[in-house]
Amino acid sequence: MSPTPVTFTPPAPLTAYEWEATNEEVARRYGVPIERIARFDLNTSPSAPDVAERALAAGRLETGLSEYPPSDYRLLVEAAAARYGASPDELLVGAGADEILDIVTKAFLPAGGTAVLPSPTYAMYRVLSEQRRATVRSVPRLSASAGYAFDAPAIRESAQGADLVWLCSPNNPTGLAEPPGAIARLLEGLLVDAAAAGAQPALVVLDEAYAEFVPESLLDLRRAYPRFVAVRTLSKAYGLAGLRVGFAVASPATIAELAPYRPPGSVSVVSVTIGTAALLDAEATKTNLERVVRERARLAAGLAAAGWSIGPSVTNFLLAGFGTPERAAAVAEALLRRGLVPRTFGPRQALSDHLRLTVRDAAENERLIDAAREIRGETTA
Amino acid sequence: MSPTPVTFTPPAPLTAYEWEATNEEVARRYGVPIERIARFDLNTSPSAPDVAERALAAGRLETGLSEYPPSDYRLLVEAAAARYGASPDELLVGAGADEILDIVTKAFLPAGGTAVLPSPTYAMYRVLSEQRRATVRSVPRLSASAGYAFDAPAIRESAQGADLVWLCSPNNPTGLAEPPGAIARLLEGLLVDAAAAGAQPALVVLDEAYAEFVPESLLDLRRAYPRFVAVRTLSKAYGLAGLRVGFAVASPATIAELAPYRPPGSVSVVSVTIGTAALLDAEATKTNLERVVRERARLAAGLAAAGWSIGPSVTNFLLAGFGTPERAAAVAEALLRRGLVPRTFGPRQALSDHLRLTVRDAAENERLIDAAREIRGETTA
Repeated sequence: MSPTPVTFTPPAPLTAYEWEATNEEVARRYGVPIERIARFDLNTSPSAPDVAERALAAGRLETGLSEYPPSDYRLLVEAAAARYGASPDELLVGAGADEILDIVTKAFLPAGGTAVLPSPTYAMYRVLSEQRRATVRSVPRLSASAGYAFDAPAIRESAQGADLVWLCSPNNPTGLAEPPGAIARLLEGLLVDAAAAGAQPALVVLDEAYAEFVPESLLDLRRAYPRFVAVRTLSKAYGLAGLRVGFAVASPATIAELAPYRPPGSVSVVSVTIGTAALLDAEATKTNLERVVRERARLAAGLAAAGWSIGPSVTNFLLAGFGTPERAAAVAEALLRRGLVPRTFGPRQALSDHLRLTVRDAAENERLIDAAREIRGETTA
Repeated sequence: MSPTPVTFTPPAPLTAYEWEATNEEVARRYGVPIERIARFDLNTSPSAPDVAERALAAGRLETGLSEYPPSDYRLLVEAAAARYGASPDELLVGAGADEILDIVTKAFLPAGGTAVLPSPTYAMYRVLSEQRRATVRSVPRLSASAGYAFDAPAIRESAQGADLVWLCSPNNPTGLAEPPGAIARLLEGLLVDAAAAGAQPALVVLDEAYAEFVPESLLDLRRAYPRFVAVRTLSKAYGLAGLRVGFAVASPATIAELAPYRPPGSVSVVSVTIGTAALLDAEATKTNLERVVRERARLAAGLAAAGWSIGPSVTNFLLAGFGTPERAAAVAEALLRRGLVPRTFGPRQALSDHLRLTVRDAAENERLIDAAREIRGETTA
């Protein structure tokens, strides 16, 4: 069907998420005062929404610090359901989107099973799949000029007989959404193939961590494709990564399959209270989204003016290309010496000649632009 | 070796933790005003320590709400290490003890493996084991008159060839610790058996959720038995169940085996900050422990005076026996109609003729004693 060099990775025993260095580690290693560390690698926001700070300051928790959160997270679930246009029985709460991903693998990716993912994408999909001792079918994305869109025919072919397909749109770390209709058409194709094979279609996870940054969400696909789990989070557009709150949105039947694997209470009572308040506030993401649009354009223009090759982005981060892994690594080192932490990609990865840079606030972004100018001066001098 | 009727449960596909009914569900079902609901089923504390309330009110978070917690939880780990007499590389943080148990199964209980547990004990061990599609060897505990101690020879025999042994001391729901030296001797036996078989000894998990209620912890066993993970929590003696903070304490080598399975940040920045403050405060558990000792004696005496059979307990809960499952169920219903929620045990469980009752504050305990008196009046009338 397609000559794409899909790679099949056999299960490896100790795959782990590579934890980001802490501020302290960066400060120590690069001799930078800790207050000068700016995180361009985490895709977080410079501040939380006012509604969240007010809820924290008020300190009126839904349940006290000494009690477990309500086992059904009812108020949080109802707030999320209203926000996402779903019913409460289409929601499942996790300690961040990462726990949702973990619960999905427990429910739908058997030990020794097979998972498909377009690459590059969020590293956790591979980590969790390999920790299940599953085989990962990695399908290379199309070129930068094609917006790093997934290779639909190759994914469709790889999904035959697979247990689970990981999708992410807008995609991290490439910064763009899949083309309009592409995911819906892929799901239709998977249903056709499964029917032809007399098999159950693969479970499709659509990670929408960055969904609020684009006009349309694809949550409604849960009605067209029964084995579909969308993942949402308060960590990105909501600016509340510190709460560790994420959600699965799926049909009631699929939620019922996930539910046995949900721990009774992994989200703190403080996070439940603040998260509920944020979801109930229609304006909670407004200031942050406006900042991202404004600062993303300014940061992209400033870095481009400094000679960097900046790709298009609909998210709160930019992807910068440097031509070679060595050049990207040299720029990363120069940034780190200034306390500016970029996201790097390992030497064997598709984007090893790129850096990923979070859109921060005006002051931090200005430091990054200044650094880009200086680094150019240093290396051309 | 022993004629004990050890049961072997084949893996079941949909084992799930049975979530406790929420206050709202109890209020609705029993027609009780929600503010009259008192939870005797969760083994939580009526209030959090002052240091935690102060930390929440101060609102000075280690990192802001918009940022992930530090990936190494350094301050929290250092505080826990100092409190538990361990070094930081002997600690692993989880979103409650439950996440630690989950991480342990991921690291040490392969799909299709075998886990051993003395029964009855905390239900989550079986749930997590069966969710791994492992076989559970359930070894009945000795009688109430023997303090529900584990059957050491039977466990030792069952542990041969097993991957994991779940221990819990003081044990939930039976309320007592294993006899002095019993766990150390068991571990010695496991090492002898493993050496004789030329095999690796099973990984032993010792859940010490209730350790602060007894004078001695068994954390030091990690030095005698290399494949040992102790589990601690802020949910019980610390009165901070709402934070969802738990720890694994193990040798550095064992922690290194668990670490790849730890999510990068499942504990909220608020929980990190408050949990650190609580662990650094030498007096954090003092008021709660004094309350438990005082109220446990008063509650036990009051319930016994009302004719209930109350077992000895070193923990923050009591086990009450009612002779038959029907009688226990009738008492539970009578309590629930008053808004008092006991922990019941399923009809096929060893303690189906018992109820478990958390030691609450003086006012709530008084309500329970009054109810016990009334129920006796009702049923003997």
